[in-house]
Amino acid sequence: MDDVLEPAAADFQLPRILAALADPHRLATVRYLARNGESWCTQVLQEAGLAMTKSTFSHHLRILREAGVLTKRIQGTKGFTKLRKDDLDRRFPGLIDAIIDAENQNPSLERSRGSVSLVPMTPRT
Amino acid sequence: MDDVLEPAAADFQLPRILAALADPHRLATVRYLARNGESWCTQVLQEAGLAMTKSTFSHHLRILREAGVLTKRIQGTKGFTKLRKDDLDRRFPGLIDAIIDAENQNPSLERSRGSVSLVPMTPRT
Repeated sequence: MDDVLEPAAADFQLPRILAALADPHRLATVRYLARNGESWCTQVLQEAGLAMTKSTFSHHLRILREAGVLTKRIQGTKGFTKLRKDDLDRRFPGLIDAIIDAENQNPSLERSRGSVSLVPMTPRT
Repeated sequence: MDDVLEPAAADFQLPRILAALADPHRLATVRYLARNGESWCTQVLQEAGLAMTKSTFSHHLRILREAGVLTKRIQGTKGFTKLRKDDLDRRFPGLIDAIIDAENQNPSLERSRGSVSLVPMTPRT
């Protein structure tokens, strides 16, 4: 049902992680998850200012998961995803914080995100 | 003679910078320049453990310059390139240091680089 292979932290490859992050929608997804902790995938799509279909969003999530940036958990019929912050911090100290904190990386996405309320589905980590 | 447009720091786009860095050879180039300061392009190709033609290396340099990671200066018949560290630090604090310091990002390149002596062409910046 879910054939995405999530690498162990020891197998992370920096070029692949950077390629996974080199997209404004995937950056918006990562920033949303950094703020909100583990979230229902459908909620991320609705609230992170991502104007795309579920299918396209699934494609982006797959790229992030295959690189090691995100992990996914199925609960009942729902998929939840979260940032692998601890693994990323251990392998590439400071990298993900620098990317999350980068100012002005996509002003249009920032604005659209600002117009919706952000309700975490789960406690923040 | 050189039609590459190097963006002003204010126009840097994080996705483009990450995409430019998402390649082991370009990462090796950036790390070499971080250690050695401004360098003769031919010397970077020879000493950074990059097994490729001049033409392919020029292509990689172009991608890095167009994203804003590197700048180039012509002196006589020689091209010199250096990392735009100050501009990158100002726009994306901590990002380039995290990438330069990342351990084990390409062990094979690290090994080949270790076998040659590194002689800076110009004083380190």
